[in-house]
Amino acid sequence: MIDYRHLRVALLGAGAVGSQVAALLLKHGEELADRAGASLELAGIAVRDLDAPRDTDLPRELFTTDADSLIVGADIVIELMGGIEPARTRVLQAINSGADVVTANKALLATHGPEIFDAADQVGAQVYYEAAAAGAIPIIRPLRDSLAGDRVQRIMGIVNGTTNYILDRMDTEGADFADVLAQAQALGYAEADPTADVEGYDAAQKAAILASLAFHTAVPLESVHREGITEITTSMMDAARHAGYVIKLLAVCERLTGHEPSASGEAISVRVYPALVPRTHPLASVHGANNAVFVEAEAAGSLMFYGAGAGGVQTASAVLGDVVSAARRHVAGGVGVGESTRANLPVLEIGHAVTRYQITLEVDDRPGVLAIIATILSEGRVSIATVEQTVIADDGEAGARARLVIGTHKAREQDLSDTVARLAESDVVETVVSVLRVEGN
Amino acid sequence: MIDYRHLRVALLGAGAVGSQVAALLLKHGEELADRAGASLELAGIAVRDLDAPRDTDLPRELFTTDADSLIVGADIVIELMGGIEPARTRVLQAINSGADVVTANKALLATHGPEIFDAADQVGAQVYYEAAAAGAIPIIRPLRDSLAGDRVQRIMGIVNGTTNYILDRMDTEGADFADVLAQAQALGYAEADPTADVEGYDAAQKAAILASLAFHTAVPLESVHREGITEITTSMMDAARHAGYVIKLLAVCERLTGHEPSASGEAISVRVYPALVPRTHPLASVHGANNAVFVEAEAAGSLMFYGAGAGGVQTASAVLGDVVSAARRHVAGGVGVGESTRANLPVLEIGHAVTRYQITLEVDDRPGVLAIIATILSEGRVSIATVEQTVIADDGEAGARARLVIGTHKAREQDLSDTVARLAESDVVETVVSVLRVEGN
Repeated sequence: MIDYRHLRVALLGAGAVGSQVAALLLKHGEELADRAGASLELAGIAVRDLDAPRDTDLPRELFTTDADSLIVGADIVIELMGGIEPARTRVLQAINSGADVVTANKALLATHGPEIFDAADQVGAQVYYEAAAAGAIPIIRPLRDSLAGDRVQRIMGIVNGTTNYILDRMDTEGADFADVLAQAQALGYAEADPTADVEGYDAAQKAAILASLAFHTAVPLESVHREGITEITTSMMDAARHAGYVIKLLAVCERLTGHEPSASGEAISVRVYPALVPRTHPLASVHGANNAVFVEAEAAGSLMFYGAGAGGVQTASAVLGDVVSAARRHVAGGVGVGESTRANLPVLEIGHAVTRYQITLEVDDRPGVLAIIATILSEGRVSIATVEQTVIADDGEAGARARLVIGTHKAREQDLSDTVARLAESDVVETVVSVLRVEGN
Repeated sequence: MIDYRHLRVALLGAGAVGSQVAALLLKHGEELADRAGASLELAGIAVRDLDAPRDTDLPRELFTTDADSLIVGADIVIELMGGIEPARTRVLQAINSGADVVTANKALLATHGPEIFDAADQVGAQVYYEAAAAGAIPIIRPLRDSLAGDRVQRIMGIVNGTTNYILDRMDTEGADFADVLAQAQALGYAEADPTADVEGYDAAQKAAILASLAFHTAVPLESVHREGITEITTSMMDAARHAGYVIKLLAVCERLTGHEPSASGEAISVRVYPALVPRTHPLASVHGANNAVFVEAEAAGSLMFYGAGAGGVQTASAVLGDVVSAARRHVAGGVGVGESTRANLPVLEIGHAVTRYQITLEVDDRPGVLAIIATILSEGRVSIATVEQTVIADDGEAGARARLVIGTHKAREQDLSDTVARLAESDVVETVVSVLRVEGN
């Protein structure tokens, strides 16, 4: 037996992830000690209600409602309470009492990251959050450490399992959004209130965390453009398939050049929206509730990280990896590595984003219509790459109509939305059926 | 301007990777300083011959043949000479003079890893080697840190770009091995002497490094079973395609249970060979010279890491990430984290590996033959999962023959090879056409 240094670990929260973390800490304690170079004692689990029903065999005596005392004596505090408060207060309390913090709390980091990282910096503590960005997928260390000598140009991530599950089933089964959502809720893949997932709030929090790390810039959650998937219809899915695409909810974090007011002319764009992804792109084959993060870096080229984006035991793996890292740091000594926000690039509004689009219109089917539409696009600085026209049966009242699917070259989002507004007002356009971004070419 | 601590970086070697590392260090110096919290001065580049032709604009005054003096004054030594000696001597010299070492040298780590890690441990130095296992793909930190709280069960990696390029072209174009190899050599994807790649030596070195890390066990290179791809024929490729597989050169690192003499009953198997991979498996869609590492862990489930496995600038990205990590450690203080080999599991011979197989035979086409073959398999403890029989045209001399493709359930390699030997001796078997392992189900 090696006489390891002894570290006290406090766990805050005993939900799906927390109970798995506790179980694995107890089960694999000796193995973790060997790897960490320190024995890890689970000192206690702070919960709100001792008598709440729990789906776990954890020893009752570990549970306490006295988070204060638990934190004071701890070397490592694992925060798995979720939400902003009291999680924020507890994390700051842990840092100020000299502990390292491990958290999976994306909402907290996306909203109070700078405050927390500053507090840690002040005392030389470290905050670990591998589980906060894409569940079990190791993405934080690759971005922070492995790519620290490179320049990340773009991240495209499928970072929300619920929406990927829904979109994947809509795509493969032709089912509609409401039906699949109901099934996902029944299976436990979606919450009773699915807003955070289907409206893209969860993905936006993760995008803010990934962009902050990749671009060495504090990215406020408010600066992340966010659209959900509630308006994706089966006919949009069919049209996408027909054109060789699949619709995915993407978190896109991008470095842009030629923008004031940054000294380097560089800026970043961070946005979450459903987008058309070519079927040949690696992200297109991410099925079910899986997540994947595609990274393009100047030197490394294209990298992809794939795995389970959620789940109690999967996320517990990422949390425990952080616990071992924290323990190793306690053993090795030295201060923590602070978050780097030195680049501090401006985060541009969505209007500055540049991407390709697919615009679907219903138009009058008569000579000259395409010329009128092409003129509107060209005046709006939106260049046409492809046009596909299908005649729609004459319903007698509205006259002959056609469906136009226009693929554009890269255009500025502001130009595009102004142009779409002009199209909508045009006499020859019956309906703007859909406008979708195209990513991954 | 921040007055950063100043760190001297010595570069050993100015080949494809080394010259890119030097160029990026000079180009992005300020940005790297911000991230590292220390300014990184490229103190010099040690080469054998100052006058060797170099495809680079690096300042001539950086080059020196005096590696000794360069190492003595360095905080961080980057070893990109390749090969065992003098790389080994230089790395030990760097460690003993108090520097941290960054290396991409898989041959060195796979053969002298324990000696080097021990030396580093003695003085509290750290050895970084993200570039040694899968080029630009971040896999070392995920295995060492992110998964440190989990138990890796299996790694399946496409870790050699040259062989994946060759196999991919054989698969997609029906071309044969020799032609594709010649083209790969002309394009610079394969060396003039391709032995290290096509015979699996390079992949075996990487497998040893990955397995050591994943299973906390010193894995000697000699214990890695190795087979190359030189015997893969177009007809094997065709048959694989027909059966829904693709042939990939895989590095398989696996945890096995129920084996003496380890205390836990656990052991590992590390092997490199061409194997059949189902077309639906994520590894099947790794094309061209790309690499990917598929990891199965107890809690995290299935993860995949994908990207460029080689290339000067891509590998330079991984090297520079390590340089920044080393610099951060110098700033933060504390001793290095040693390699963990505490599990020290026995590495089993290939005979103990357990996998599925596809056996292709040419047999006499007459009643009772299948029964005889099935009996031989059953006596050999190899259980049949599928059989496909095709009649081969009677050539008049040998009589009617048939081709049998037998898919097995999981079997021990030793049982399988004994059984195949018995099949080869049997009167009813004309030829054992091929025996391939099936991985990824």
